[in-house]
Amino acid sequence: MSAEVICVGTELLLGDILNSNSQYLAKELAALGVPHFYQTVVGDNIDRVHQAIETACGRSSILIFTGGLGPTPDDLTTESISSYFNIPLIGHPEVIADIERKYAQRGRVMTASNRKQALQPEGAAILPNPLGTAPGMIWQPRQGLTIFTFPGVPREMYRMWRDTAVPFLKTQGYGQDPIYSRSLRFFGIPESALAEKVNHLFDSTNPTVAPYAGKGQVRLRISAKAASAAAAELLIEPIAHEIKQIAGTDYFGSDDDTLGSVVGKLLVAKGQTLAVAESCTGGGLGQMLTDTPGSSSYFVGGIISYADRIKIDLLGINAEDLAAAGAVSAVVASQMAVGVRTKLGTDWGVSITGIAGPDGGTATKPVGLVYIGIAHPDGSVEAIEYQLGIQQERGLIRQMSAAQGLDLLRRRLQVIA
Amino acid sequence: MSAEVICVGTELLLGDILNSNSQYLAKELAALGVPHFYQTVVGDNIDRVHQAIETACGRSSILIFTGGLGPTPDDLTTESISSYFNIPLIGHPEVIADIERKYAQRGRVMTASNRKQALQPEGAAILPNPLGTAPGMIWQPRQGLTIFTFPGVPREMYRMWRDTAVPFLKTQGYGQDPIYSRSLRFFGIPESALAEKVNHLFDSTNPTVAPYAGKGQVRLRISAKAASAAAAELLIEPIAHEIKQIAGTDYFGSDDDTLGSVVGKLLVAKGQTLAVAESCTGGGLGQMLTDTPGSSSYFVGGIISYADRIKIDLLGINAEDLAAAGAVSAVVASQMAVGVRTKLGTDWGVSITGIAGPDGGTATKPVGLVYIGIAHPDGSVEAIEYQLGIQQERGLIRQMSAAQGLDLLRRRLQVIA
Repeated sequence: MSAEVICVGTELLLGDILNSNSQYLAKELAALGVPHFYQTVVGDNIDRVHQAIETACGRSSILIFTGGLGPTPDDLTTESISSYFNIPLIGHPEVIADIERKYAQRGRVMTASNRKQALQPEGAAILPNPLGTAPGMIWQPRQGLTIFTFPGVPREMYRMWRDTAVPFLKTQGYGQDPIYSRSLRFFGIPESALAEKVNHLFDSTNPTVAPYAGKGQVRLRISAKAASAAAAELLIEPIAHEIKQIAGTDYFGSDDDTLGSVVGKLLVAKGQTLAVAESCTGGGLGQMLTDTPGSSSYFVGGIISYADRIKIDLLGINAEDLAAAGAVSAVVASQMAVGVRTKLGTDWGVSITGIAGPDGGTATKPVGLVYIGIAHPDGSVEAIEYQLGIQQERGLIRQMSAAQGLDLLRRRLQVIA
Repeated sequence: MSAEVICVGTELLLGDILNSNSQYLAKELAALGVPHFYQTVVGDNIDRVHQAIETACGRSSILIFTGGLGPTPDDLTTESISSYFNIPLIGHPEVIADIERKYAQRGRVMTASNRKQALQPEGAAILPNPLGTAPGMIWQPRQGLTIFTFPGVPREMYRMWRDTAVPFLKTQGYGQDPIYSRSLRFFGIPESALAEKVNHLFDSTNPTVAPYAGKGQVRLRISAKAASAAAAELLIEPIAHEIKQIAGTDYFGSDDDTLGSVVGKLLVAKGQTLAVAESCTGGGLGQMLTDTPGSSSYFVGGIISYADRIKIDLLGINAEDLAAAGAVSAVVASQMAVGVRTKLGTDWGVSITGIAGPDGGTATKPVGLVYIGIAHPDGSVEAIEYQLGIQQERGLIRQMSAAQGLDLLRRRLQVIA
């Protein structure tokens, strides 16, 4: 018994989108211990989908389709499956009612083309889509063959997979001796430097330790095979403890923690509040902070001082200092942090000013130069200079600037009582 | 004659890596006009690679393999291909010399395992790898079937593809008549509704028209096969014009345009400025606006009024109105927009206040309820209510709120002189 992932979509064959669904499903199947030997991508064409089903049926017993469940004529996954097995499509009024309700919630009227999304092969069970209009199905067209369909929109697919396919596969005996994992998250250390420090752990077989890197963050995943979560914990915890000792303050959190949520927990623990003053990030630091539900208990707000005039008028930056040192300078970063802390009446103020590019860089102030200011509860202030890379793209410099701001605040919150 | 991409690697089936090679090759094949109907992923297993070759030979005439060319026992793409066609592997001393030289350059000695990288089926031509040790091959094991192999390391594969496969495919007549595309972008209309309006265009063969949807935006891609960009333009432009006429103001831009860049162009054209007041988005609207380089010429800044106190203190919201109607209300959205326009001295003010969830919703004010306020240059103000969906995730509600704010401003900028 093995699974095959079949992604349907001409956009994949044109290279318009990256096939991240295959990777997600591959990881999930591996975690559940379901054998998975093939993946297929096929375009929006009934004959070719038939051909892909024919091939897959000869070598796999669980076919997992993603994509092609939308309302347009291009979307023909369900139709292709039903015609391949020569089983008629049946309308499901409750699905139409659900789609109508979802449209109504957004003040819209369902179009006639959505009706096809309520058609499923006779005998198939509907997989509800809580986040979108396209339901999926689970169907056993014949003994020993199970077919799942999911929409191609990743977050809809993820949710439906977790809600429906995972429980089903568990009833089939998979995921009984599953893999338990914990991710440790690091900021401020390159992957290679961290890997060298914990190199001796990479040969471990249970638990295993593997590094992942992306956009300034590094993650180490500790995975244990065990009969229970408690048994896995006994394997994972000593390794996690050792890694934390080695990494020191570069370790910031585990699993779903983000820099924003960790800063939030530290502020809540101290009963302190925060305001931000942003220039080059244009609101990105505030957005990162407010990604965390409940952030209103410590994040009061901020001032986006994109124009110099706003820095002077709203944040009280000294106009002479600004003219002398320039907007991207330690003195302006410091005054922005103090200004927003004072103006918004918070314990902490964090500021960011920098050159995100692609234009605006000079020999002495290149693209990627960023200052972060921190105004402390005791009234003191500091500004730190960062060089985020003259070659980096605007979007990455802005994102890294906001992340550095959160990380600097985290480090200060961790050491200052 | 069509191409099939076959990626070999158990790491893909475990979800350890994202299959970006498939997307790269898909784009390249589309640009050259090579038909491409299937992609296959298969693990490091000779029998299964044989099975993938068997299937591919029955439906495709150009097989493009990536991965499995390394020196370890896992790497068995070349061996699998030669054994499938029952043609012996021949050693190439010049490849061994090349690998030895590359090792020596890094101060290392070639290992015995690298010798297998010099083996290719008899009759195959070597594709040199300037960036790594694994060469690829091009081979016609029989009339009408061409096989390419490339290493799985993306940058090595890209370089070898450009150096060897592209010239070969051009000698076969491809790339003479490439595909030119234009994307039209829409906001405020669901994919299904737009598709119904332009349904008659989906049967067109040159140019073709295909819809794509994601996160509130819909895109129609018009693709033309033509001998030159100018000839393609003659095919694309009439269809683009017709679609724009049909879509009206739901069309907002083409190709790389974003809502933020389009709003920027409109503001620049009018010589007007903008400020934002954000509650539930926490800075996300400012961030979207400042994603566009040069946005400092029209975007002045904003106030993130996450706490009610900041709405009153910094934006001048009437405390009684706020208490009576609540922070998420049309009256507060209006006063926020007016307040930030006045305080920052801009032509336009845009505000967002809403319930992003997951908590904080009530029966009368559910999660997903958002008000957007627009303060106009003439001093007038309006607030529009949106229901973004009680089931939606916090992140998506916040992102959609910011996008709706930009879109509403865009519509007002387009009609008001």
